[in-house]
Amino acid sequence: MLGKGVLNVLVILILSYFIIKFGKQVIQNIFKRRRKGPFKITQRRELTLVKLLENTLTYMVYFTAAIMILDTISIDVRTLLAGAGIAGLAIGFGAQNLVKDIITGFFIIFEDQFSVGDYIQTSSSEGFVEEIGLRTTKIKHWTGKLHIIPNGSIVEVTNYSVHNSIAVVDVSIAYEGDIKRAETVIENLLEELPQRYQELKGTPDLLGVQSLGSSDVVLRVIAETEPMEHWAIARAIRKELKTRLDEQGIEIPFPRLVMYSRQEEHEIMETTS
Amino acid sequence: MLGKGVLNVLVILILSYFIIKFGKQVIQNIFKRRRKGPFKITQRRELTLVKLLENTLTYMVYFTAAIMILDTISIDVRTLLAGAGIAGLAIGFGAQNLVKDIITGFFIIFEDQFSVGDYIQTSSSEGFVEEIGLRTTKIKHWTGKLHIIPNGSIVEVTNYSVHNSIAVVDVSIAYEGDIKRAETVIENLLEELPQRYQELKGTPDLLGVQSLGSSDVVLRVIAETEPMEHWAIARAIRKELKTRLDEQGIEIPFPRLVMYSRQEEHEIMETTS
Amino acid sequence: MLGKGVLNVLVILILSYFIIKFGKQVIQNIFKRRRKGPFKITQRRELTLVKLLENTLTYMVYFTAAIMILDTISIDVRTLLAGAGIAGLAIGFGAQNLVKDIITGFFIIFEDQFSVGDYIQTSSSEGFVEEIGLRTTKIKHWTGKLHIIPNGSIVEVTNYSVHNSIAVVDVSIAYEGDIKRAETVIENLLEELPQRYQELKGTPDLLGVQSLGSSDVVLRVIAETEPMEHWAIARAIRKELKTRLDEQGIEIPFPRLVMYSRQEEHEIMETTS
Amino acid sequence: MLGKGVLNVLVILILSYFIIKFGKQVIQNIFKRRRKGPFKITQRRELTLVKLLENTLTYMVYFTAAIMILDTISIDVRTLLAGAGIAGLAIGFGAQNLVKDIITGFFIIFEDQFSVGDYIQTSSSEGFVEEIGLRTTKIKHWTGKLHIIPNGSIVEVTNYSVHNSIAVVDVSIAYEGDIKRAETVIENLLEELPQRYQELKGTPDLLGVQSLGSSDVVLRVIAETEPMEHWAIARAIRKELKTRLDEQGIEIPFPRLVMYSRQEEHEIMETTS
Amino acid sequence: MLGKGVLNVLVILILSYFIIKFGKQVIQNIFKRRRKGPFKITQRRELTLVKLLENTLTYMVYFTAAIMILDTISIDVRTLLAGAGIAGLAIGFGAQNLVKDIITGFFIIFEDQFSVGDYIQTSSSEGFVEEIGLRTTKIKHWTGKLHIIPNGSIVEVTNYSVHNSIAVVDVSIAYEGDIKRAETVIENLLEELPQRYQELKGTPDLLGVQSLGSSDVVLRVIAETEPMEHWAIARAIRKELKTRLDEQGIEIPFPRLVMYSRQEEHEIMETTS
Amino acid sequence: MLGKGVLNVLVILILSYFIIKFGKQVIQNIFKRRRKGPFKITQRRELTLVKLLENTLTYMVYFTAAIMILDTISIDVRTLLAGAGIAGLAIGFGAQNLVKDIITGFFIIFEDQFSVGDYIQTSSSEGFVEEIGLRTTKIKHWTGKLHIIPNGSIVEVTNYSVHNSIAVVDVSIAYEGDIKRAETVIENLLEELPQRYQELKGTPDLLGVQSLGSSDVVLRVIAETEPMEHWAIARAIRKELKTRLDEQGIEIPFPRLVMYSRQEEHEIMETTS
Amino acid sequence: MLGKGVLNVLVILILSYFIIKFGKQVIQNIFKRRRKGPFKITQRRELTLVKLLENTLTYMVYFTAAIMILDTISIDVRTLLAGAGIAGLAIGFGAQNLVKDIITGFFIIFEDQFSVGDYIQTSSSEGFVEEIGLRTTKIKHWTGKLHIIPNGSIVEVTNYSVHNSIAVVDVSIAYEGDIKRAETVIENLLEELPQRYQELKGTPDLLGVQSLGSSDVVLRVIAETEPMEHWAIARAIRKELKTRLDEQGIEIPFPRLVMYSRQEEHEIMETTS
Repeated sequence: MLGKGVLNVLVILILSYFIIKFGKQVIQNIFKRRRKGPFKITQRRELTLVKLLENTLTYMVYFTAAIMILDTISIDVRTLLAGAGIAGLAIGFGAQNLVKDIITGFFIIFEDQFSVGDYIQTSSSEGFVEEIGLRTTKIKHWTGKLHIIPNGSIVEVTNYSVHNSIAVVDVSIAYEGDIKRAETVIENLLEELPQRYQELKGTPDLLGVQSLGSSDVVLRVIAETEPMEHWAIARAIRKELKTRLDEQGIEIPFPRLVMYSRQEEHEIMETTS
Repeated sequence: MLGKGVLNVLVILILSYFIIKFGKQVIQNIFKRRRKGPFKITQRRELTLVKLLENTLTYMVYFTAAIMILDTISIDVRTLLAGAGIAGLAIGFGAQNLVKDIITGFFIIFEDQFSVGDYIQTSSSEGFVEEIGLRTTKIKHWTGKLHIIPNGSIVEVTNYSVHNSIAVVDVSIAYEGDIKRAETVIENLLEELPQRYQELKGTPDLLGVQSLGSSDVVLRVIAETEPMEHWAIARAIRKELKTRLDEQGIEIPFPRLVMYSRQEEHEIMETTS
Repeated sequence: MLGKGVLNVLVILILSYFIIKFGKQVIQNIFKRRRKGPFKITQRRELTLVKLLENTLTYMVYFTAAIMILDTISIDVRTLLAGAGIAGLAIGFGAQNLVKDIITGFFIIFEDQFSVGDYIQTSSSEGFVEEIGLRTTKIKHWTGKLHIIPNGSIVEVTNYSVHNSIAVVDVSIAYEGDIKRAETVIENLLEELPQRYQELKGTPDLLGVQSLGSSDVVLRVIAETEPMEHWAIARAIRKELKTRLDEQGIEIPFPRLVMYSRQEEHEIMETTS
Repeated sequence: MLGKGVLNVLVILILSYFIIKFGKQVIQNIFKRRRKGPFKITQRRELTLVKLLENTLTYMVYFTAAIMILDTISIDVRTLLAGAGIAGLAIGFGAQNLVKDIITGFFIIFEDQFSVGDYIQTSSSEGFVEEIGLRTTKIKHWTGKLHIIPNGSIVEVTNYSVHNSIAVVDVSIAYEGDIKRAETVIENLLEELPQRYQELKGTPDLLGVQSLGSSDVVLRVIAETEPMEHWAIARAIRKELKTRLDEQGIEIPFPRLVMYSRQEEHEIMETTS
Repeated sequence: MLGKGVLNVLVILILSYFIIKFGKQVIQNIFKRRRKGPFKITQRRELTLVKLLENTLTYMVYFTAAIMILDTISIDVRTLLAGAGIAGLAIGFGAQNLVKDIITGFFIIFEDQFSVGDYIQTSSSEGFVEEIGLRTTKIKHWTGKLHIIPNGSIVEVTNYSVHNSIAVVDVSIAYEGDIKRAETVIENLLEELPQRYQELKGTPDLLGVQSLGSSDVVLRVIAETEPMEHWAIARAIRKELKTRLDEQGIEIPFPRLVMYSRQEEHEIMETTS
Repeated sequence: MLGKGVLNVLVILILSYFIIKFGKQVIQNIFKRRRKGPFKITQRRELTLVKLLENTLTYMVYFTAAIMILDTISIDVRTLLAGAGIAGLAIGFGAQNLVKDIITGFFIIFEDQFSVGDYIQTSSSEGFVEEIGLRTTKIKHWTGKLHIIPNGSIVEVTNYSVHNSIAVVDVSIAYEGDIKRAETVIENLLEELPQRYQELKGTPDLLGVQSLGSSDVVLRVIAETEPMEHWAIARAIRKELKTRLDEQGIEIPFPRLVMYSRQEEHEIMETTS
Repeated sequence: MLGKGVLNVLVILILSYFIIKFGKQVIQNIFKRRRKGPFKITQRRELTLVKLLENTLTYMVYFTAAIMILDTISIDVRTLLAGAGIAGLAIGFGAQNLVKDIITGFFIIFEDQFSVGDYIQTSSSEGFVEEIGLRTTKIKHWTGKLHIIPNGSIVEVTNYSVHNSIAVVDVSIAYEGDIKRAETVIENLLEELPQRYQELKGTPDLLGVQSLGSSDVVLRVIAETEPMEHWAIARAIRKELKTRLDEQGIEIPFPRLVMYSRQEEHEIMETTS
């Protein structure tokens, strides 16, 4: 009887495997045909829809198979169902995360919050989206780490790939220096940059005095770039600024300290010696 | 049978698509007509109402379609409903976030907490509102990042675009300096500013001695500006203050340290050498 | 049929609008009359009561309207109610925050925890109360930001406007200085202050040596002021103290350091050179 | 009908008002009489009991009134109750904080955890208790802020007014100094203190070397005082210690640093110049 | 009718008072007799059992009284029970903390996790246990503060009074010093200590080089002491170590810094002057 | 009767033991045969499937045995079930973590999130996966610690073993130095590295100026390596860079400070002496 | 009747006491006999099984006794059960932690996550396991503190006693020093260590340049040791390294600073004097 049960389980598993394989081909064929038809949707949306249908198919087949397998090895199921009140409560609560994952996953795909290739940031991870599923999303960090995140824990998403990025560079000028001359030098440099860097959208801006620090006056430069090019552009602007300010003899100051040297009073010295 | 099911699903999807498209036009026509009628509401409110109705329409159509699709592929639905007690509990719990999102979204639109174009801050993100939906809100950070936030996780909102903003500038004066003279110089400067900067609402205020730091006396200047102009104005005031204090020879002090040089006692030196 | 539904919805909305408008006037008339009658309650309480009744009216009318609208577009409602077990659970859970907001809001108004114009602090925001509603409270920060807080997330409130405020000023005295003389100078100054500043309630107190820091002896001065005047008074006292201590030649010390210059031992120097 | 409803509501409100007023007098009369009777309980407990009964009365009358008012404006109530399953769940969950507040409030009063005038500390606030209610407790901070805390969020309470307080003063001695002599000087001073300060309970203790810091040896002094007098006594001891150590020529050391001056090696200097 | 209700309430309260008073005496008598009988349990356990029974009695009598009082003032109870579905849910949820407190309290007493007089630490408080109840535990901090903690929030307890304590003293040695000689000096000292301090259990251990700091080599000494004597012993060892190292001329080093003095290059100086 | 019960329990335990032992062999035999058959799946997946089936078998047998044992000692079970309503609720809630663990565990194995030998990171632990079970996962940290984590608390997983790793090395250059020359020297070095280190994938990149620090210009180098080789490669690159920069006389700068020596003014000196 | 109840309670308590005492002996006898029988399991597992059975017995007897005692004092139980709906909910929720503790405790024992004597770390405590129970685990910290942790709050466990430990020692070398020579000296030392320290497993490794600090080059040494010997071995390696580097004249550097002395410009000096 156990042997027969195991056989049944295997038959169910193999059938499920072929149904999924066949179903996926049907889904892809439908979309291939439709592409020649009158309805036109962007290819990115289509990929999302195919993935959504495939995902739904897979989960449904496996869910049906799981029920059928549990049905096959009937002794255990009956014992399990004997305590259904308690078990039901426990399973209902335990499974709520699974339901939350699928609901959130559905809305991520449906509302097109992000797509494969976008650079996104969640509360605890960031990187390029490698795969979006109904239950989990895979994000590849630039250091090669692969984050696997259940969709239900993606509450707030930040998408870097929708709008142009802004590179922000802060540069310090000495308090003794001439701010106006420094501003002129920097602005002249910024106007030359768009020719040299294609990723720049328009001339970078010198915003002005960002803060009066304890040892330096901080000037802020911002530059609009193509999405996700702000890191590279910020590095380039830093180098250009450093080189230009050196050429023009404008100092980037080190930390400063004013020191008063004092002689210790005598009555205290005597007690310690 | 599977083929027929897939066909039905497609028919439902296409119908939904046209109902939404048509419904949205009807909503917009009604509002166009009404605009000439006797009822007068501000345009901003009207945009909100249109969006609210459109949103409601879309979600309802898709919800109906989803129920109908599940109904079409009836085998799976029945299996799913067989374990309805447990599944119902799990789905009920898992879906509570979805309900919370929509309830909160409704109140955001209904109570006009913020509208498209406002600069808002939530617990974890800030930026200009790009889109308000029933379920999610999109906020664009000034660096180009796009935050997509489910409404249910917008608990406390801070709206920067309702009232005038206040620019706050702290400036350090040396302990050895003359506070009264510094105050006079700064107040003279502040009175000149409203002519030069349109965004200023009235003359900025010199509040007084904000703190007695370890190396400097900190004076605080505040200036009322048009909404969201406080960053630009603060930068401008910082530059003006630095230039004016330089001209008047009032020092912005570096960190200070009083150093006592002492000779080490002999009995200790001997053990170490 | 859809057209008729939309018409019904509009009729319901317009009716609601007029009921609310009319109801509010009735409420205000009742209170105007009562004011001449025998019952006397403070005006602040009355404003609260009017607001409470208006708020209750608005929410009830809109709630009735919402049920009626859902009833009108009956197809969707039926589909929605078909899955009532699950949906009910989800809605019940999702709506608990709404209920919590209204219950807390009711108690804020009913127990008079704070009123419009008070300066309050919640766990994450602070500012002057601009508006108290049944569901949300609006607080205006002094920098112009408007915090919109659902009442349910106002757990602990701190109200600054009920009692007199205390301004706290810490001033550093050098270790080498004479504490008793510094105390006498400060106490003489404090006695002169009540004449010059109306917001002061009585003479400020010099509490004594608050801490023996690494470079300075810290003396603490506190002054009772009218509610919310402590920031301005603290700034004024800081300036007065700094000026008076300068006049009396009592030093506010900079950070200190005792430095021992040592020659490096030879055996180590050789390995590095 | 709406007019009649509003009238009914007003009648209910006025009746409630008089029932509460009358009920409170009855409660106080009972306690006045009982005071001459044979049962003796402390007056503090009696105040607590009166407050508890009054509070219970008020909440019960208002609760009954609320039910009756909802009953009067019957249309809305019926609509509300139509969706009772869902609404009940939402209200049940939303109201659990209210129930928790009252249960905790009852135990605070019943177990006499703190009483009006005590200085207490909760997880986020501290100050003198101004009022204890069934639902909220009001605490006045020494700077004049009034904390209003729902009892349910008072999980752990720290009461400073039950036992004597301990003032803790740490004083630094130089490494080069003579610890034994410093200990003798401090102990002599501590023995003189009880005469001068009534709030002291017995002679303060010099515990010993609390830590071997990077620049100083820290000695700790503790003094038992009457409840809440430890801040004032600590300030007094700090001043006494500073004055006595100065008189005896025992140094309170500044931060120290041993500096090795080194000439830079030549091969490196050349590349930078 | 209200008057009669109040009378009933008073009768119930007085009866409860006497039942508790009498019941406590009965419990204590039973235990007094049993003490002469054949069963022998430690006195600490007995105190715990008496307290447990008394506590149970008190809570049960009060609970019965509360139900009876609610029954007496029957109008309110009926109104309350009319909305029993909702109210029951709210009360059930709101009261779960109370149940959790009592369950945890039962296990604290039953499993003898700590007893009166022990020094314990919970997640947020520490001190000597003053009283253990079924619902709350009172802990007295050494500074005189009294923590009142509901048992349900005592998740993890740390008990300091079960095992011997370990005093840990870290002492710094100069990098230029001779570690082996320092170790010998310290070990000689440690061997002398057990005679002088009764609280020590065996000779303290010199563990070795705990860390190679930026300015010093840190050696760690540990000493087993009687429970809760580690603070006093650590202070004593610190003083002994400091005195002995001074006598033996082994330096406890100050922070060190190697300073390279450099002349600024000329081209930069010119632009700033 | 108790004796018989204990006997029954032992029989059940022994039977369970043999069923599991036999069942595991059957599972492994099936997979051994299948391996010669037509279906081909990767061996890693097969191991996962065997483990999944074995795990399921073990838990089901033990669960059945537990129910049977509880049934045998029937007195206790009946008492337990008498309070089934309450007990069921408590057990249902208490067991939800167990259910969550198994559901998450199933998806970890089913979706192949990580496999034995991978280096993964969860929210609180990281290390090489030693064992994946249905309920817990064991991770071995490189310091030898073994983390045992219930699967339900593995929310987000980061897998380091899927993609190539990136080694990141930041190196500081003096402000006075020549950035272009430093870049050339570093780039020449980077081109030599792939020959010397097999783990490198292609030539490392010099990204550019990562930040303008207070004392140094920071250049960033990144290198793609085989999975998990980035730590070793980063160490190697650091050493190579240090050696090459030394040879080429390019300084890695120490922290810098500009010091202004000032004489104290006289009026202040006099009051302190 | 009350007297009789108390008597019954005592009889029940005494009976429970003897049943537990007798039951434990039966359990231990069974295991003693079995040890001579054919089944062989490790002794550690056996201890665990005995403890598990004893624990189960104790809790079941006490649970039965509790139900019987409640049954005896029947008045209170009936009152309690009168409000069963609400009370049941409260108890069910309040008791879920108890259930969670026992479930987790069962799995800790069943899966052999750790055993008595192991050094483990939970989220908030670490130490040697002193006792594992069904509900709580006792951990002894090396300073003598005894942590009592409910099993339900042991989510992730880290077990240090399963695998060999790794001692990690970081040592700083001066930038001016010769890295290759330092590496040779350290490697020579490491090869000598296995003879001197039995706890070492193989020769320690010099990993290489762990970081390029601001004042020093940090080299990392790791050494595999027997479980929990890494602290002692790390201390030993630190001492050996310090001594050897001293002998070889390789400097462990102090923090460094490059100082530029600058004369203040005159125009600023004049305004301050």
